Amino acid sequence: MKITCQKSDLLSSVNIALRAVPAKSTMPILECIAIDVTDSFIKFTTNDMELGIETIVKGSVQETGSIAINAKILSDIIRKLPDSEICIETDTKYMVTITCGKSKFSIPGKVSDEFPSLPVIEKREAMILSQFTLKDLIRQTVFSISDSENNKIMTGELFEVEDNKLRVVSLDGHRISVRRIDLKDEFRNTKVIVPGKTLIEISKILSGEISDEVRIYFTDKHIIFEFDDTMVLSRLIEGEYYKINQMLSGDYDTKITVNKKEFLDSIDRATLLVKESEKKPIIIGVKDNEMELEMTSNIGSMDESIDIMKEGSDILIGFNPKFLMDALRVIDEEEVTIYMTNPKAPCFIKDKEESYIYLILPVNFNAAAR
Amino acid sequence: MKITCQKSDLLSSVNIALRAVPAKSTMPILECIAIDVTDSFIKFTTNDMELGIETIVKGSVQETGSIAINAKILSDIIRKLPDSEICIETDTKYMVTITCGKSKFSIPGKVSDEFPSLPVIEKREAMILSQFTLKDLIRQTVFSISDSENNKIMTGELFEVEDNKLRVVSLDGHRISVRRIDLKDEFRNTKVIVPGKTLIEISKILSGEISDEVRIYFTDKHIIFEFDDTMVLSRLIEGEYYKINQMLSGDYDTKITVNKKEFLDSIDRATLLVKESEKKPIIIGVKDNEMELEMTSNIGSMDESIDIMKEGSDILIGFNPKFLMDALRVIDEEEVTIYMTNPKAPCFIKDKEESYIYLILPVNFNAAAR
Repeated sequence: MKITCQKSDLLSSVNIALRAVPAKSTMPILECIAIDVTDSFIKFTTNDMELGIETIVKGSVQETGSIAINAKILSDIIRKLPDSEICIETDTKYMVTITCGKSKFSIPGKVSDEFPSLPVIEKREAMILSQFTLKDLIRQTVFSISDSENNKIMTGELFEVEDNKLRVVSLDGHRISVRRIDLKDEFRNTKVIVPGKTLIEISKILSGEISDEVRIYFTDKHIIFEFDDTMVLSRLIEGEYYKINQMLSGDYDTKITVNKKEFLDSIDRATLLVKESEKKPIIIGVKDNEMELEMTSNIGSMDESIDIMKEGSDILIGFNPKFLMDALRVIDEEEVTIYMTNPKAPCFIKDKEESYIYLILPVNFNAAAR
Repeated sequence: MKITCQKSDLLSSVNIALRAVPAKSTMPILECIAIDVTDSFIKFTTNDMELGIETIVKGSVQETGSIAINAKILSDIIRKLPDSEICIETDTKYMVTITCGKSKFSIPGKVSDEFPSLPVIEKREAMILSQFTLKDLIRQTVFSISDSENNKIMTGELFEVEDNKLRVVSLDGHRISVRRIDLKDEFRNTKVIVPGKTLIEISKILSGEISDEVRIYFTDKHIIFEFDDTMVLSRLIEGEYYKINQMLSGDYDTKITVNKKEFLDSIDRATLLVKESEKKPIIIGVKDNEMELEMTSNIGSMDESIDIMKEGSDILIGFNPKFLMDALRVIDEEEVTIYMTNPKAPCFIKDKEESYIYLILPVNFNAAAR
C-alpha cells in the first residue's frame, strides 16, 4: 500500500475517524484506524462496536492495499509533520513508513483483516437536514440525557417523526428537553432511540453550515448519517421510550416573561456560593412585576431582583440552578416565557409554537428556614 | 468602610492581588485580600509570607476603614457581576455587602488586624527596566530552575549586576540558562537569589510593554518590584549561588548553525514516540553539512535530517529532548549556533555576544545498540 496526501487533507480525515476510536478497549485493534486503499479511493474506518465511521481521504494512490495503524500515534505524527505532502507506505511485514520531506517515521501496523468491518445496511429513504440544524438540535437537547448506564434508554435521545415534524427528546428523571422542527420533505413516521454518545461525537464532526446537508437513514437497529465524504453508523438503543406527551401538557397558574441573559447571569452568580455537590436550590419569588432570586450557603448569601412581565398568581419556588442554566443556555431567544403551577409541580420554559419545551422539576426547600 | 469602583478596575486589581494568595494555607487569613481604605486611597494587600503584593485600586471612597475578604470568593463575585459600578460596604459585624445594580451579595469578612502586614523596607537606588525586558528575562530563564525543595538555591534565579550589566541565571543540575542585558543607568554591583515562584507570579502581572517601567530595589533580605500602581515584595533566598563562570567557559570541537524552527519542530516530532517519564534521548549525528536526528522507542522510530553549517569534527551525541526544546523555545533568533566537544561534555547554545548561553548536559546512550 502506498498513498500520498496533503497534510491538511489527512489531518481532517484523521480527526473525523478519531471520533469512533474508544479511549481504551479490551480489543487493541479497535484503537486503530483501518486504512483501505483501492484504485478508486482511500478510506479510513474506525469502529468502537457501537459507533462506526467511514471517511474518504483526498489523495493519490500509488499502490493499493490495506493496514491498521494505532489512531492516536497516526494522528500525533500527522499533526506535527510540516504542512506539506505526506506519503504513507507499508511493507510486507506490516511496517508503516510515514515520510514528509526529510522526516521519516516507522511504526508497526496491524493486518487490517483483524479489524471488525462495519455492518452493511440497506439504505432506504433519506431524511435530509442541514448540518447546522442537526448540530443545533443535538446541542439543544443532549445536556439532559442521563449518564448512568443503569437506565440505558435515558442515555439516548428520542428521534421521532410524525406528520413530517421531527421531534428530538431527552430526559434524565429530573427534566425533559424537547425540540421540534418541520421537515422540508415528506418522511414516513419513525420512532427510534439514538445513543447520546453517537450524537455527541457526530456533532463534533458536523460542519455546522446551513448550506451543507446531512442525509439520515433509519433501520430497525441502526441509524446512518451521511455527509461530505463521511458515513457515521450507530446502533440504536432497543426498547420503548417514555410516554412524555402527558407530562408535557397541562395548565398553569403563573406565566412570566423574562430577559434570558439577565436571568441566566443572575443564576450563574448565585452558583458562586455553592459547590455543585451541595445541591442547594436557588429560590425564586415571583411577585408583581419582579422576580427575586435568593441563594444562601455557608459562604454567604445573594439576593437579586429582575424585572419581569407576569400573568397569574405569585409563587415561591426552588430549583437546581444547573438545570435552569442548562436550558437557558441553549435557548437563542432574547426573552423566555416560564409557566409554573405550584412549588411541587414541574415548570415549563417554552415558546408559543412549542418548537422547544424544557420541563424542569422544582426542588423542595424549607420556606420557613430561609 | 464603603467604596465604589468600576468592575473593570476592581477586577484588574483583584487579579494582581491574587498572585500572592496561597492556594491552601494553615493560616486562613492568608487566603484573604486585605482591603485598606483611607481618605486618599483604596489598597489591596496579599501576603503568602514569602511574597507580598500591595496594589492601589481606582475608585471613590465613601467611608474609610478596613476588612479582609476571602480572595477567591471576592474574585469570583466581581468577575461575574455586570460590567458596571460595584459598591463594597462593611458593617460593624464585619459583614461585607457587595452591590451592583439590583444584585446584592453578603459575605462574612474578617478583621484586617489579623492580616500579617508586609515588612516596611527602606528603598535605596532603583534599577529601572522596561516591563517588557523583565518579563522576557524571566520567560527565557525560569524553565530551568529546579522544583525540588531539597536544594533551595536551585529553586531561585541569580540576579547579578556587574559593570552595569544584569545577568540572570538559573540551573537545575542538568542545564544552565543565562541571559545578560546592558543596564541603561549606572547601578551598583549586586548579587541576590530571587525565588523562582516570585518571578513566575510577577511575570503574570507585568504588562510586557516596552514603554512601561518597573523599578527594582534590592536589600539584604528582600527584593521589591514597583510598577504601575503595584508593589511586589519578596524574600530573597539566602546562601551563596553556584560559581558558574568556570562551567561556561571552554573550547569546542564542533560548531554548527541551524535553523531554529526546523530543529525545534524536528525534536518536537521525535518526542511523539516517547512518554516524558521514559527519558529516551534523541540522538543527534553531525556529519558534513547535515544533522541527523534519531529517536527509537517501543512505539516506533523517527529519522530526520536537517541542513546545517558545520565547523570542526563530526559528532554523535544524545540529549534529553525536553532540555533542547525548552532552550530553543525561548531563543527568538531565526538561527542558533551550537558548540559541542564530545558526547560526554556539555553543549552550549549561545550567540556571539553571549547575551544568552544555554548549557545542556548530554545523555549517555548505547551507540552500539542503536
